[in-house]
Amino acid sequence: MRPAGLASAARRCQSIAASSSSPHGLSRVPLALRRYIASDSGAPRSVAKLLEWKPEGSAARDIVVNGYIRSVRSMKARTFVALGDGSSLAALQALIPADQAEGLAIGAAIRLRGSWVPSPGAGQSHELHVDNVQVLGPSDAKTFPIQKKYQTPEYLRTMPHLRPRTPFNSAILRFRSEVVATLTQFFASRYFVQTHPPVITSSDCEGGGEVFSIAPANKTEDETDESFFRAPKYLTVSSQLHLEALAQSVGDVWTLGPTFRAERSDTSRHLSEFYMLEAEMSFVDDLGGVMDLLEDMLRHTATELYQSRVARELRAPGRDKSADDSASDRASPDEVDKRWQGLMQPSWPRLTYTEALDILKTNQHLFRHAPVWGDGLQSEHEKYIARVVGNGKPVFVTHYPRDIKAFYMRPTQEHERDATSQETVDCFDLLVPEFCEIAGGSMREHRLPQLLDAMKRHGIVIPSSDGSIQPTSPAGPLDWYADLRRWGCPPHGGFGLGFDRLLGYLSGVQTIRDTVTFPRWYGRCDC
Amino acid sequence: MRPAGLASAARRCQSIAASSSSPHGLSRVPLALRRYIASDSGAPRSVAKLLEWKPEGSAARDIVVNGYIRSVRSMKARTFVALGDGSSLAALQALIPADQAEGLAIGAAIRLRGSWVPSPGAGQSHELHVDNVQVLGPSDAKTFPIQKKYQTPEYLRTMPHLRPRTPFNSAILRFRSEVVATLTQFFASRYFVQTHPPVITSSDCEGGGEVFSIAPANKTEDETDESFFRAPKYLTVSSQLHLEALAQSVGDVWTLGPTFRAERSDTSRHLSEFYMLEAEMSFVDDLGGVMDLLEDMLRHTATELYQSRVARELRAPGRDKSADDSASDRASPDEVDKRWQGLMQPSWPRLTYTEALDILKTNQHLFRHAPVWGDGLQSEHEKYIARVVGNGKPVFVTHYPRDIKAFYMRPTQEHERDATSQETVDCFDLLVPEFCEIAGGSMREHRLPQLLDAMKRHGIVIPSSDGSIQPTSPAGPLDWYADLRRWGCPPHGGFGLGFDRLLGYLSGVQTIRDTVTFPRWYGRCDC
Repeated sequence: MRPAGLASAARRCQSIAASSSSPHGLSRVPLALRRYIASDSGAPRSVAKLLEWKPEGSAARDIVVNGYIRSVRSMKARTFVALGDGSSLAALQALIPADQAEGLAIGAAIRLRGSWVPSPGAGQSHELHVDNVQVLGPSDAKTFPIQKKYQTPEYLRTMPHLRPRTPFNSAILRFRSEVVATLTQFFASRYFVQTHPPVITSSDCEGGGEVFSIAPANKTEDETDESFFRAPKYLTVSSQLHLEALAQSVGDVWTLGPTFRAERSDTSRHLSEFYMLEAEMSFVDDLGGVMDLLEDMLRHTATELYQSRVARELRAPGRDKSADDSASDRASPDEVDKRWQGLMQPSWPRLTYTEALDILKTNQHLFRHAPVWGDGLQSEHEKYIARVVGNGKPVFVTHYPRDIKAFYMRPTQEHERDATSQETVDCFDLLVPEFCEIAGGSMREHRLPQLLDAMKRHGIVIPSSDGSIQPTSPAGPLDWYADLRRWGCPPHGGFGLGFDRLLGYLSGVQTIRDTVTFPRWYGRCDC
Repeated sequence: MRPAGLASAARRCQSIAASSSSPHGLSRVPLALRRYIASDSGAPRSVAKLLEWKPEGSAARDIVVNGYIRSVRSMKARTFVALGDGSSLAALQALIPADQAEGLAIGAAIRLRGSWVPSPGAGQSHELHVDNVQVLGPSDAKTFPIQKKYQTPEYLRTMPHLRPRTPFNSAILRFRSEVVATLTQFFASRYFVQTHPPVITSSDCEGGGEVFSIAPANKTEDETDESFFRAPKYLTVSSQLHLEALAQSVGDVWTLGPTFRAERSDTSRHLSEFYMLEAEMSFVDDLGGVMDLLEDMLRHTATELYQSRVARELRAPGRDKSADDSASDRASPDEVDKRWQGLMQPSWPRLTYTEALDILKTNQHLFRHAPVWGDGLQSEHEKYIARVVGNGKPVFVTHYPRDIKAFYMRPTQEHERDATSQETVDCFDLLVPEFCEIAGGSMREHRLPQLLDAMKRHGIVIPSSDGSIQPTSPAGPLDWYADLRRWGCPPHGGFGLGFDRLLGYLSGVQTIRDTVTFPRWYGRCDC
């Protein structure tokens, strides 16, 4: 039985469906065609696509393009407008009749309709001769904080909600998106499963004390910070432990997600909230397989994107004057191009920590901190190794001393140890000049007794009353992690890569405060 | 000048590079080929690929496959093992000589080498006749909590770190991954920029009081919860406001990321941490364009994945007995197939809230709660509308009363209002039977005075001392959001979709506690 009222409703649904069409009456044309590829006339719609478009004949009429005014120059009979929409560093030049020039202020959101005609000016093949202007979002140009002149990165950082509107910062956004899409395709082609491990976690032991804890903002009187989840909870500092569980389910996994550190430091390489790309491979026997994956992934990304428009813009900015708003805090175009070239090269050097130490010691007069076997590498050491060993390529440094690395790393087998015979672990850091460590990885200890032993050494496992470690010893909030070894844990390993650092490295941006749109660090969380 | 020590290091680097090859000596073969597509013999490596592989001739030798034992059956001369690796619901049958059967326990991680030969058994074309077994990760089968029998979802939920190992839960993981990859491709093809808006935010006003706040876990004596960022900070409840800023930079944007609510509720549709897919379009004039995008996106996803292996597995599980471990808490295969069919159909119904109310009132004897204009729709109302109006398709209900919706929604223009002439906003909910609201969206108020007025009505903006709202009135932590309207804000709109709910809807899983691997809700945050 048809419910009462449905017949008239069905009629009205149809009328709504019809009236919900675009202003051009194209409601049944796929959205892609309607908004992105072409206007009614078949012409492109974005500034980037229009700038590449050189139609046959002298003029293409009825071109519609949306964007924001980057600059205005009024002459007697007409007004010149540089229009940008975030799709390219370069702006589109539009000529607007004087009687349509009202409201044309810097920053305004406008829609132009006109003809795309060959341009007599230098630097552009065509320009838009406008018939009709619609000011869709007016702008108070006098107070607009984004000016078409050099503005310091520090100044732009005070307004993260407006900063993305500068051409270079919009290019950074597009670049992030293209890298994510490329990585998604890369991992899919290798049957890696993209996962969403949790942000709220139970263990703080990986964060070295520098973790954020969470609690409901509005607690009732009889609640404590911990009553919501019945135990203290934290923001994740790494998804690795959870990824290991997922790798035991579907083989090889990866994730790209937010990660948190409550570090009270003020550097160009650290944020309180940052993106980590983490991958975990199961049934991988040695560290070489993990390094191969990371190397393949980065080489693929650089090779795929090298010729993309956004990558070309990042490597050679400044051709369009309105684009160089924060140019000075960037590496030179030559330097950035060299970085891309390095990533595209095959066979990146791999050397052990001990070998790196040998090189550092032989040249120790160059350093402020003396290199000592057993200590971590200082930035100056990492930079030196990256530069002289890498010679343009990233460098893997492997097999660090056990005692300066995390509890879950697999110890190097005795017969694989180097001449020093010291206890090391099967791990690596990937170093690049300037940014130092960009990724790190390891084989994980997959044997239960050895893992419990390492957890004891790190104070994570509580031994039995007689001091012995039993397979059932409580590992506190990491009991579940030990559990993963009880029932079928194959050799496995993986890596984590600082995603924002990678974007900074490939875009030439010197601080990750400027590769992240809304950066958060000690004392700063605007918007 | 070549630094001292480099020559010998370079030699050693090369020896490391050589020794870091795979056990098969294939170090210069691309990783993809080496690990995923084929073993030395050219045969596939994953269980899923092997099961599809029907080589010419009678046997393919030296096939290597890794996986976990789902079941063991020992006969006199040999042992039958069902091997799974998470790549398919179905298991691979392996025949192992009795003298190699040591350590073959349920759950164990093993590597098998053998011949892939036509099988005399029913239900499989080939089976693996094993020459060599390696137990890479032993299993204590007696204590292994994952058994090859029906286990209740409640029981499996007590061990989220082991639950993914059940065949159905590994299929859910693969499905999530394929949906993410499909969406990434969909948005890239339409020039949407994928973005990473912040998780730590300054405003709690969108969360209706149910937000989590954060603080460093280890505070010094003179620090408060708020001193780290110099103001209270929260976990995001929606990225929409930040996405609007990004849309003003690069046009159309989207994101898929974690979202948080400190809700003290216990339902099958809510989690404290969940994934939201949000999209924001700039220069879109009316709500129809936003609904078109959402409809296109879901139709594209369903159409692309309908014939994929994982989607077929989710729609028709239970063919393999070892796979139906949590089957009973799922919708029937027919029901799930109907959902997919509905999403693939064109032209989903769109009706207004007022029209929906008319239908509900005409049939009000069916409901526990009387439908009243001005109130929100109850679940029973949403389900009814979704069922009778949708008739298999999802249903858009549009133009809800202004006073029950968020402050940022654009009011419906007077000439567009329906017969009731009541104040509504340009918004929609997308309803499906059983899951009710799966997505919601709106046009945003892009005009400054109107936005400030709405913020005042919602108690967000503090009026001047004379009670008037000035363009410069402080909007507190949302000052920046008002700012977006000061300089060039075009009409824009977008939507948010509960990603875990969508996965539940398409997989037939009835509660999102079982579509998310490590679910967090009031009182529960295991692992």
